[in-house]
Amino acid sequence: MDELKSKKIIALMSGTSCDSIDAGLCIVEPDMSCRLVQGINFQYPEHIRAKIFRLFSGDATVKDVCQMNFAVGKCFADACNVLISEHGKPDFIASHGQTIFHSPKKEKLDGIQLRSTLQIGESSVIAAETGCPVISNFREADIANGGEGAPLVCFADEKWFKKLKKNVAIQNIGGISNVTVISNSHKTYGFDTGPGNVIIDYCMVKLFGRTFDMDGETANSGKICDSWMDCLLQDEYYFKNPPKTTGREYFSPMYIDTALRFAPKEPEDVIATVTALTAKTIAQAYERFIYPKLDLDEVIVGGGGAYNPALMKFLRHYLPKHINIKTHEDYGISNNFKEVMAFALLGYCTYYGIPNNLPECTGAKKRVILGKITNI
Amino acid sequence: MDELKSKKIIALMSGTSCDSIDAGLCIVEPDMSCRLVQGINFQYPEHIRAKIFRLFSGDATVKDVCQMNFAVGKCFADACNVLISEHGKPDFIASHGQTIFHSPKKEKLDGIQLRSTLQIGESSVIAAETGCPVISNFREADIANGGEGAPLVCFADEKWFKKLKKNVAIQNIGGISNVTVISNSHKTYGFDTGPGNVIIDYCMVKLFGRTFDMDGETANSGKICDSWMDCLLQDEYYFKNPPKTTGREYFSPMYIDTALRFAPKEPEDVIATVTALTAKTIAQAYERFIYPKLDLDEVIVGGGGAYNPALMKFLRHYLPKHINIKTHEDYGISNNFKEVMAFALLGYCTYYGIPNNLPECTGAKKRVILGKITNI
Repeated sequence: MDELKSKKIIALMSGTSCDSIDAGLCIVEPDMSCRLVQGINFQYPEHIRAKIFRLFSGDATVKDVCQMNFAVGKCFADACNVLISEHGKPDFIASHGQTIFHSPKKEKLDGIQLRSTLQIGESSVIAAETGCPVISNFREADIANGGEGAPLVCFADEKWFKKLKKNVAIQNIGGISNVTVISNSHKTYGFDTGPGNVIIDYCMVKLFGRTFDMDGETANSGKICDSWMDCLLQDEYYFKNPPKTTGREYFSPMYIDTALRFAPKEPEDVIATVTALTAKTIAQAYERFIYPKLDLDEVIVGGGGAYNPALMKFLRHYLPKHINIKTHEDYGISNNFKEVMAFALLGYCTYYGIPNNLPECTGAKKRVILGKITNI
Repeated sequence: MDELKSKKIIALMSGTSCDSIDAGLCIVEPDMSCRLVQGINFQYPEHIRAKIFRLFSGDATVKDVCQMNFAVGKCFADACNVLISEHGKPDFIASHGQTIFHSPKKEKLDGIQLRSTLQIGESSVIAAETGCPVISNFREADIANGGEGAPLVCFADEKWFKKLKKNVAIQNIGGISNVTVISNSHKTYGFDTGPGNVIIDYCMVKLFGRTFDMDGETANSGKICDSWMDCLLQDEYYFKNPPKTTGREYFSPMYIDTALRFAPKEPEDVIATVTALTAKTIAQAYERFIYPKLDLDEVIVGGGGAYNPALMKFLRHYLPKHINIKTHEDYGISNNFKEVMAFALLGYCTYYGIPNNLPECTGAKKRVILGKITNI
């Protein structure tokens, strides 16, 4: 293996909410620490975003998938070029891509049991349009080795937070919420706790015509409907043992529309309840799958949810009082660009041939090198 | 760059006819010569093949594409493992994958002009199931650099046949027919001449319930319908200047069904005519796009069409008499596994970081390294 060196990496990520491409110029050091030099939210052109949602909905042809892979690749390249114009070329680009399908459970396809995942944003287009090598498609290898292809961020969490020598839960609240549990006594493990902002955002669009609940104001102006929340909390996903992952395919528009048929009348109460639901499912996941193993000293929240004061207030309310709640920012890691930074680290490891999945988190049979390398 | 060494490579290809996965164990030498140790035709399980045809027809969801990428990857891995069980592991695997969409012309997607291509057969699955590194997805980088992503085989043709120091046309007749023109006086160039076996095979299924015309017997028992052939020869593709490529999307079931509405009554005459059409379109392509530049000494035929005596007879008839017609076998290259051998060479170059597209053939703006590397 080559001697590890400091690398300048642009990392790219677009989550299930698909509101923008998060692009970050990062410096990853041989000790696996990662520093964000600049992060940007690069907006998808509106017609591309609309087409991605058509892909999510399944209402798309093979031709659409083929073309959108190239079109999204161009958007990712455009995002890179904003950073490159200011900071020069990186050593390479690490691109998560845009997930358009993720099926982490074994499903039967004519007698074959398989899991699968599909990220678009063609790496060759990114390489051609930026002139930089690209490392991409991180989830496939984990799935090919029996894992769920997620959560991958656990790997970075372990590298960054194990040195705290505390029992900590790294709680990311994006479209979906996922937790990584790091301690001195147990192997690092992680799983998706359930919805993050996906239900809140969908209801905001549907009931208020707004894309998200700015500063949690709508949730704060409503009140929780206990009976509806109790009903929603019965979803079988929350009871399943880790490792487990979920996604927009599960907490789908159809799922939420069905749930809304039993919702309280006041739209503010709906938002209050689904915001509380995200916090409550996190707290219940800890009760079921963390406290039986270890006591937590601290929860470190990241992702867009960290900026929703209503959500944070509910989380404080539902978690045991002795647990500190901090955010990633308290540790010099951007709440917004944490996943981007994690993919910079994953790309760094792929570049050097260092296995970078955590089987305890993904369920994979072994540690493998994730990703594909596109040279120029 | 590392010093070039001899490499043992399993190359994988499945063409537009999708009748089997062609897998070949090859030895590629630093002088770019390639020797086939063993080649096999690995049959797709019938239900997988049926599903691939559903993908071709566009009658498929995003989920189908996602799952089939993994399912086809497993089939490719199974094909490798047949060879590995006999010969041991190769240094790496070079996989073309299964094309499910190829759109080499600029098409408008909401104002964006783009070309695109999509090959499935997940490289991570091949890597996981064989324990070998995989190089895959060769066409994307050429398209990302302004090319048509095809023909790629020209690169191998140049390496293998330039040393003959003659003016030769390397004529591959697979589902689609493509030619590479190699001479001392001109840069190597190539293009798709038009249909290969795609129309013949479709008509055989439709009219005779058989997958292909064994030994050209059906064509030999019918007679050419000149008026229908003249009509078919008017297709605008044949008149376009190279570089140009085509595919199953163009010579589609719908295209052929439409053509059949004007066909002669006797089914044998239909087969005779479409077989002659393939030969005639090759001969006309030479008249239009080769002879004005150079005189050919020799045509070297490969692909399944080389085994159709009726097709070869028509080709001899339509080509100028002074041109020698040979097959790849005459030069120690398998007719059946020529493309596989070419992808072994392409993979070899990707491995060593050697650019391996020919812009004169694909229309790309520059030479680039094709393919993505999946390590284990």
